[in-house]
Amino acid sequence: MCRWIAYLGQPTHMEDYLYDGEHALCGQAQKSYQAKLGVHGDGGGLGWYSRKPFPGLYRNAGPAWGDPNLREITSQLESNLFFAHVRASTGAPNIFVNCHPFRCENWLFMHNGQIGDFEKVKRPLEQKLDDQSYQMRQGDTDSELIFALLCTNGLRRDPVQAIEATIDQILDHMRHAGVKAPFRATFALADGENVWAIRWSNDAHAPSLYQRLQCDHFLLASEPLDDIEDNWREVPPNSLVHAQLTKDGQVQMSQSFLFEKVA
Amino acid sequence: MCRWIAYLGQPTHMEDYLYDGEHALCGQAQKSYQAKLGVHGDGGGLGWYSRKPFPGLYRNAGPAWGDPNLREITSQLESNLFFAHVRASTGAPNIFVNCHPFRCENWLFMHNGQIGDFEKVKRPLEQKLDDQSYQMRQGDTDSELIFALLCTNGLRRDPVQAIEATIDQILDHMRHAGVKAPFRATFALADGENVWAIRWSNDAHAPSLYQRLQCDHFLLASEPLDDIEDNWREVPPNSLVHAQLTKDGQVQMSQSFLFEKVA
Amino acid sequence: MCRWIAYLGQPTHMEDYLYDGEHALCGQAQKSYQAKLGVHGDGGGLGWYSRKPFPGLYRNAGPAWGDPNLREITSQLESNLFFAHVRASTGAPNIFVNCHPFRCENWLFMHNGQIGDFEKVKRPLEQKLDDQSYQMRQGDTDSELIFALLCTNGLRRDPVQAIEATIDQILDHMRHAGVKAPFRATFALADGENVWAIRWSNDAHAPSLYQRLQCDHFLLASEPLDDIEDNWREVPPNSLVHAQLTKDGQVQMSQSFLFEKVA
Amino acid sequence: MCRWIAYLGQPTHMEDYLYDGEHALCGQAQKSYQAKLGVHGDGGGLGWYSRKPFPGLYRNAGPAWGDPNLREITSQLESNLFFAHVRASTGAPNIFVNCHPFRCENWLFMHNGQIGDFEKVKRPLEQKLDDQSYQMRQGDTDSELIFALLCTNGLRRDPVQAIEATIDQILDHMRHAGVKAPFRATFALADGENVWAIRWSNDAHAPSLYQRLQCDHFLLASEPLDDIEDNWREVPPNSLVHAQLTKDGQVQMSQSFLFEKVA
Repeated sequence: MCRWIAYLGQPTHMEDYLYDGEHALCGQAQKSYQAKLGVHGDGGGLGWYSRKPFPGLYRNAGPAWGDPNLREITSQLESNLFFAHVRASTGAPNIFVNCHPFRCENWLFMHNGQIGDFEKVKRPLEQKLDDQSYQMRQGDTDSELIFALLCTNGLRRDPVQAIEATIDQILDHMRHAGVKAPFRATFALADGENVWAIRWSNDAHAPSLYQRLQCDHFLLASEPLDDIEDNWREVPPNSLVHAQLTKDGQVQMSQSFLFEKVA
Repeated sequence: MCRWIAYLGQPTHMEDYLYDGEHALCGQAQKSYQAKLGVHGDGGGLGWYSRKPFPGLYRNAGPAWGDPNLREITSQLESNLFFAHVRASTGAPNIFVNCHPFRCENWLFMHNGQIGDFEKVKRPLEQKLDDQSYQMRQGDTDSELIFALLCTNGLRRDPVQAIEATIDQILDHMRHAGVKAPFRATFALADGENVWAIRWSNDAHAPSLYQRLQCDHFLLASEPLDDIEDNWREVPPNSLVHAQLTKDGQVQMSQSFLFEKVA
Repeated sequence: MCRWIAYLGQPTHMEDYLYDGEHALCGQAQKSYQAKLGVHGDGGGLGWYSRKPFPGLYRNAGPAWGDPNLREITSQLESNLFFAHVRASTGAPNIFVNCHPFRCENWLFMHNGQIGDFEKVKRPLEQKLDDQSYQMRQGDTDSELIFALLCTNGLRRDPVQAIEATIDQILDHMRHAGVKAPFRATFALADGENVWAIRWSNDAHAPSLYQRLQCDHFLLASEPLDDIEDNWREVPPNSLVHAQLTKDGQVQMSQSFLFEKVA
Repeated sequence: MCRWIAYLGQPTHMEDYLYDGEHALCGQAQKSYQAKLGVHGDGGGLGWYSRKPFPGLYRNAGPAWGDPNLREITSQLESNLFFAHVRASTGAPNIFVNCHPFRCENWLFMHNGQIGDFEKVKRPLEQKLDDQSYQMRQGDTDSELIFALLCTNGLRRDPVQAIEATIDQILDHMRHAGVKAPFRATFALADGENVWAIRWSNDAHAPSLYQRLQCDHFLLASEPLDDIEDNWREVPPNSLVHAQLTKDGQVQMSQSFLFEKVA
């Protein structure tokens, strides 16, 4: 289980979102109030878009709160769209290739959740990958596999359809393997201009997700980054959020329920 | 602030003490019940005596709970005297030379606590070191400096006297520098045959320390490793514990109050 | 490409073999005389048998020559059968799960060489794995895949047959995929009592392997550990070496050519 | 001993200078042609100026050639003044605080060379530091100590005078301690607008330094980054180079001999 934030808006220094106060992401890593696991010390990562066609990627297997390089990068750079993630391993080893975000061409992905009894469906799901997505896999996590399935299932063409197809596919395989443990997935995707995020579970415990829409930016976070309740709205379970920048630099946001939109 | 355990007794596999259950040392690292800081993910270390004149030393800057090498070593090796430590940094960077235990010849040292306003007394205290102890310093922590002062102040000759002289010396320098923050030190020392430990503070909050004496071993721990209350006795604040193996393989243990014994 | 040593004999301190002189394994890591790549700084590892049924495993992604923990372990422990390995990556990232040796139950494996155009045969070869070997895979290297194939192909039952079947299988898949690049494999296997090693390539450049048989031990090494020529014999290309301890503590060694023995 | 480059000029992507070809800095790290030590795998670092008052700093204890984060940063960012460094330890442990560049406020420093018999002069030289420079020290290297002495000796006020005073001071202490081993220092300093570099030794073996002046940038490097001989001029031993950007964006460069300028 993990904690993450996704930012879309005017270019901003990333440092504050990671380090300013005990509710900032690195504070949540040391003490989370809403996570299943209290500590997220098994690696951290940052993906950011700036002036290059592909996003930058920084991942490190140590605790994000004590990583001087992550602090430097977020204090030096500005970005108008970035993902940051802190990890609590549910089994896969603490190595940078198991850290989020994951990247494929211009896409970023990060995840909080778990495919229940993953080892029972890992192999058949990996067989569903197209060759490019199969070769892309560097690590061992269910999270990276979800991303690889999204890429196989048409992410570039139609992200919402790919999300629904991938959830369906995973649920199918879990059912077929007799898995009773839940499939939980609260994840975010970006292509450099849009952010999509879902809060999903096939039981009643979809991992938490909050949103904050302000004049100059839109923020998604596993839990609120400050104590001002009015700032934050919970994203409802099993729903999908889409945000993009309009031409006048405002963030336009919409929300829908999964499996309704494309019904 | 940190968590540590010290074992003296019949040769034992170390693994259980670090990994068996949520109260074992690596469980405490992720969730401590009695520590000022709840998470101890800023490095871990192991010092053990076996058949060599000098103890073995393993230190790693990442979280102990996710370190496969620490797990391997403790599962393969037996020791009749070992120290294990998990670290929560109070400022010094996460690098292995800042991890405990520290070693000098046949001696091991590990520490939980803090010299208040350390930067105000660091330099004058380092000037008190003899040359050998000055050169020994690899890291940047107050803990390693306490050990270096102990070595300078006659640890090899008379450990109890060296402990008291070092505490005095540090308190003197803090007073002289106008430091109001407390000096807290719950630490352990070993020479391969004896273990000395103190629980000390110059305020009312000496970092916790517990002991368990069983037929085949004596254990000191920052907090109990199990829920069986009868197993554990709290070490009183500002006291010193000494344990050694008798010729028939039993552990002999004594306790005294600091600054009384040598009065 | 890599450098490795395998030791079988009377229990010995491992330290000398890794650190004593510029030709010891960590010297070879910094400057190799016979390797395709001169530097082997992309991780190191140690597997050793002692009193436990399963061997101990230590792996670290940094350069072996500067790893204080590897030095400590080899200076503290004795073993009668150990593998040590330094890695030069041919593409897979520098993470401990890509470091050798690899372990499965009581078996150890380490490798020097490369499956040419690996990405062209990786997926079909992974499909040949039995489920247990598939799940065992933690990393991304061709080396680990060779070991997983060996396990699938009956390593526990008949190691020599498994080696020949696995080489055949890999060559078949390379041929089928139109790969012209060579398949080179100089590797070692152990089960705790026996050591098997091959020096193999399907071109004329089988990675080097040397052996030294002395009264109290048998050593295999990618290149000699000292300058005394009489000590070392080159293992001929495309041959297999088998060594085991006799009841009187001597090492018995035999050599055969691959694909002849089981013809 | 180390390899380093310093760039001043039009904003550029840093990636090419580190990764493009076998003579780029990370190529030199694996195989150096002019260095005393052939391999520089004991850490790497980058300091760069962009839009913030203080430079960014990235340091990692692993080999630079296999560090995906260093590659990402240099491929994403542009800078008009940056330092990059790969390290071969002469004894101090492989930890990020021992990696170059070092930073103090708006200043960067990196070094190739060695204070001979460093342990004999370390303590008295550290006593010469002013308090701020003493507290700044995080690691254990002679290089960081040279930088701290430069800061103490008036670097901010008059860099050239500070360089000469510091060399004098170190030579004095070496003489006083009876050190016969040489003091070699080829280092670079920057304040965000200027670069100063010296190539110095008190014996005949000043560590190599080359310069390349082109229309849009000035480059200093431990050894040439390409095979085009006409591009590069050797910096003479015991000389100092100063470079700055003029108002029209050109680089102005001057050279003088140490201990002559301020005679």
